[in-house]
Amino acid sequence: MAIILGDNQYGKAESRLVRIVRDSPRHEIRDLNVTTALRGPFEAAHLAGDQSAVLPTDTQKNTAFAFAKSHGVQSVEGFGLDLARHFVADVGPVVGARVEIEEFAWARAVVDGAEHDHTWLRTGQEVRTAAVTVDADDEHVVAGLKELVLLKSTGSEFAGFLTDEFTTLPETHDRVMATALDAKWRLSGAAAADPDRDWDALYASVKTLMVREFATLQSLALQQTLWHMGKAVLEAHPDIAEIRLKAPNKHHFAYDLDRFGLSNDNEVFWAADRPYGLIEATLTRDDAAPAGDAWRASAGLA
Amino acid sequence: MAIILGDNQYGKAESRLVRIVRDSPRHEIRDLNVTTALRGPFEAAHLAGDQSAVLPTDTQKNTAFAFAKSHGVQSVEGFGLDLARHFVADVGPVVGARVEIEEFAWARAVVDGAEHDHTWLRTGQEVRTAAVTVDADDEHVVAGLKELVLLKSTGSEFAGFLTDEFTTLPETHDRVMATALDAKWRLSGAAAADPDRDWDALYASVKTLMVREFATLQSLALQQTLWHMGKAVLEAHPDIAEIRLKAPNKHHFAYDLDRFGLSNDNEVFWAADRPYGLIEATLTRDDAAPAGDAWRASAGLA
Amino acid sequence: MAIILGDNQYGKAESRLVRIVRDSPRHEIRDLNVTTALRGPFEAAHLAGDQSAVLPTDTQKNTAFAFAKSHGVQSVEGFGLDLARHFVADVGPVVGARVEIEEFAWARAVVDGAEHDHTWLRTGQEVRTAAVTVDADDEHVVAGLKELVLLKSTGSEFAGFLTDEFTTLPETHDRVMATALDAKWRLSGAAAADPDRDWDALYASVKTLMVREFATLQSLALQQTLWHMGKAVLEAHPDIAEIRLKAPNKHHFAYDLDRFGLSNDNEVFWAADRPYGLIEATLTRDDAAPAGDAWRASAGLA
Amino acid sequence: MAIILGDNQYGKAESRLVRIVRDSPRHEIRDLNVTTALRGPFEAAHLAGDQSAVLPTDTQKNTAFAFAKSHGVQSVEGFGLDLARHFVADVGPVVGARVEIEEFAWARAVVDGAEHDHTWLRTGQEVRTAAVTVDADDEHVVAGLKELVLLKSTGSEFAGFLTDEFTTLPETHDRVMATALDAKWRLSGAAAADPDRDWDALYASVKTLMVREFATLQSLALQQTLWHMGKAVLEAHPDIAEIRLKAPNKHHFAYDLDRFGLSNDNEVFWAADRPYGLIEATLTRDDAAPAGDAWRASAGLA
Repeated sequence: MAIILGDNQYGKAESRLVRIVRDSPRHEIRDLNVTTALRGPFEAAHLAGDQSAVLPTDTQKNTAFAFAKSHGVQSVEGFGLDLARHFVADVGPVVGARVEIEEFAWARAVVDGAEHDHTWLRTGQEVRTAAVTVDADDEHVVAGLKELVLLKSTGSEFAGFLTDEFTTLPETHDRVMATALDAKWRLSGAAAADPDRDWDALYASVKTLMVREFATLQSLALQQTLWHMGKAVLEAHPDIAEIRLKAPNKHHFAYDLDRFGLSNDNEVFWAADRPYGLIEATLTRDDAAPAGDAWRASAGLA
Repeated sequence: MAIILGDNQYGKAESRLVRIVRDSPRHEIRDLNVTTALRGPFEAAHLAGDQSAVLPTDTQKNTAFAFAKSHGVQSVEGFGLDLARHFVADVGPVVGARVEIEEFAWARAVVDGAEHDHTWLRTGQEVRTAAVTVDADDEHVVAGLKELVLLKSTGSEFAGFLTDEFTTLPETHDRVMATALDAKWRLSGAAAADPDRDWDALYASVKTLMVREFATLQSLALQQTLWHMGKAVLEAHPDIAEIRLKAPNKHHFAYDLDRFGLSNDNEVFWAADRPYGLIEATLTRDDAAPAGDAWRASAGLA
Repeated sequence: MAIILGDNQYGKAESRLVRIVRDSPRHEIRDLNVTTALRGPFEAAHLAGDQSAVLPTDTQKNTAFAFAKSHGVQSVEGFGLDLARHFVADVGPVVGARVEIEEFAWARAVVDGAEHDHTWLRTGQEVRTAAVTVDADDEHVVAGLKELVLLKSTGSEFAGFLTDEFTTLPETHDRVMATALDAKWRLSGAAAADPDRDWDALYASVKTLMVREFATLQSLALQQTLWHMGKAVLEAHPDIAEIRLKAPNKHHFAYDLDRFGLSNDNEVFWAADRPYGLIEATLTRDDAAPAGDAWRASAGLA
Repeated sequence: MAIILGDNQYGKAESRLVRIVRDSPRHEIRDLNVTTALRGPFEAAHLAGDQSAVLPTDTQKNTAFAFAKSHGVQSVEGFGLDLARHFVADVGPVVGARVEIEEFAWARAVVDGAEHDHTWLRTGQEVRTAAVTVDADDEHVVAGLKELVLLKSTGSEFAGFLTDEFTTLPETHDRVMATALDAKWRLSGAAAADPDRDWDALYASVKTLMVREFATLQSLALQQTLWHMGKAVLEAHPDIAEIRLKAPNKHHFAYDLDRFGLSNDNEVFWAADRPYGLIEATLTRDDAAPAGDAWRASAGLA
């Protein structure tokens, strides 16, 4: 029974990289947080401190900034693929690479009714995400978003649930439903590698579909809402093999105003921080290739 | 030389209060973080533990939720005035009250091209703020915003500065300028108390004016940009006695790509977290009443 | 090709539960953040909104607080096992349960040289963690800690690394090495279920072993340091099947003081926030049972 | 009625500076977050963008790092005085300087029962603070701490309070009292400038005194506890002119277990995040010089 090195990887996390396109007076901006990680035969670095196969994390950072110039940033998914393929193809010992990118959204400043050429305001709460995994055999892209904060003030119920001796929750047929959605959708192989894919359009479509389902479904449970959100995405986009949803149930409790001689017909709420419900669900296809490392990579070490 | 009690106040901080208006199918939402504090002759509570003059912070919280129903929330400034006047007028020992409110912005979900009646997405980065101070003599409203994140990719310079033996910074005539602006503007007395004031319109106007100046001024320094932002606000709104601006200079460093045989004409930046420059400026009028407690209240204990 | 429900679970996250033992004048405290999640045949809740098999997350929360009284909190691992076993054994439809707990450390206040009976100060930076997974077949306990912040001011090198066209990092044979360690160690089956196990002692031992290796190894790379830390733990504790380490390399850059006519022999550093290196490694045994869900559960959805 | 520039200052915020003393094998560490700000006749920078009187914030940062080498860091208060005096004395246009420093605590790693020479663990929750203000006329040092998290599991009451129509809180004669204390104590003029002062000893003494009062007083209200804490400090340290205390009442609610047939004699609590009570009090001496800018500087713009 020997002690052995198992899964391992190393890289540079959270390089905050801003790319401005200034080929015309109307500039463009992409604002990224880039994390790269490499996998391969790095036993000697661990067991003996031998760095001869280790490309420093500082070099990985330099590469990301250099590629932002030389390759540009058409999308976070495409930029992630460019970087990951480079590490696997061009750096000798590297067998696999994972690139995770967050993108922060900006909206053009509106000045005297017109969009400004080179000034922006940070917008939205959500962060766009991409996790790209490349190895000798396959490529996976897990696109996504996190912290998309949604609230509906009616159209949500919770009743008919299982009870036991610790159950005190009353049923409700009208409540506030609010969440801060994390969603990740996976494309594999040829679907991920399609050079003509418009990743920005895919992102916009997925977000729009999810918001529509959240808004329009008369919800009997957050589980049901998530199912409908994911189903709408998979139906509209055959290239998406799976979608994973993680949604806190951000509780809004109707404040008891009867004590003060006031009614409260779902008008005044206390928005609680903790604890919160947490619903997690994956939707896939019955013929989908197994998720494997790509999913795990999107959560942490694969 | 005796030890004495100086400035003191107490209250309930950060009640997260959501008010839904549902008089018609098209609901409205106001999402607040309410902090109240009371001042008065509370020596006995400190020196002897005698609570007979102390309205519990729990009661202050209940009051805020009850007022959200009974008075409604037309604006954070108006709601703050309602609450603060109540504490001073109706709670015996209370001499002064301060109410600080943060408001989080929501945008209606767009579903199939139309705004949805009862579903919203959290929007924007900035938080709207109000600090209302009421005592027997006067009322002050300090309206504001915080964390309004702005960036311009050109139109900013920094040169001609003072140097000493520790100066290594090169001059620049084209840089990224980015900030996360905190701004507070003060109205006093009759200006604050005007029952017909449209606080939401005032907020929108001040924000628009500041964004326009930030975007359009060819900036020689962040100080100059702040001056122009504040000046535009004071010129447009005679009721505003003062405006205080606090702006981190969120540094974006052009990444050195020459080392890799690449040019970088202000296209690829590293966005640093810390340290950052921090510029603070107050603009006022030469005949303005002194700021006094209202300003101090907006920062902390007055 | 049909759309199907894949992995899913639901529960109550982040119940902040404080347990005081007051059987004698010398009280004891355990300060927890409890997250529970249930797995089972919950398709109807998703597809049809049918909650008849769903024990509300509110009930899960009530159960945690009730068990803190009825079962007590001898350790986070033991408390997690108590809760998880209950959900699987006593709640009809539940097939598997995962309980994740964070524990915050307190030290007794020292008053006039003596430990106080009922007053504490929060201490330490690190958070103790436990992730317990129970299903019909097996039990896993993943104990751990996160954010253990360590720094050594010498005894760390980095040299002899691979270079490419993007490499600019100089070699060093003396640097500051600092990290905020996350570590998780897994016990399975009989090892996890041993009712006589002293989980607090195990935790203390693992932490002590890791700190010793960090301090005493002349480090040629953070990878090597992690290997030695993990190896020491596995050698000392045969019941631990695997240990997973995740360590940011928190860069401390020697500030260039030559420009000011001053030397800087590793005395003055700028501690950078981002980016940072990130090293991840798992150590296991060549005969260890596969990690499977227990590891994945410790990172997210299993 | 002209628009004029009021209070203003500018500087470099949050330089994370680590100073290692390595004159012997037993190293020492001081881990700081340094913020500097300068005041003076900077109208031209605002109104005209003229930087000729402006020492760049980058230079201020360089100065802090250079002084950490040339002057050393005996204490945060002393280091702040060194820096602030330099800016006022040596940089032509500067009239006043404010230096704010946070210090993070480290404890030596214990290896095989002995303190290690060059390895540390971050310890404690609280952050030590110093705000130094120097101008032509005076020097003030406001020393302090923030986020000192304290909890007592008995010895706290709250009863006999004022009630009105919104009061629902029951009285209690035994509750958990917990806070995350912010405290600031001010020394002026000669007291601040005493070159022989042992600032570390003063800090340790003030903290010890406050913890003792928190622990030992049978508290009738958090206000009373704060008064006793401040009074003990002022009595023991005649050089301290004032102390300002700010203490959230971090509510711990006994969980209702009667519903499950269990008693809960203050054994199981839910620790709430928000809202929280917030008590603020200043203790001073009846012959103390007015606080003035030093206090305001410790909170923000003076």
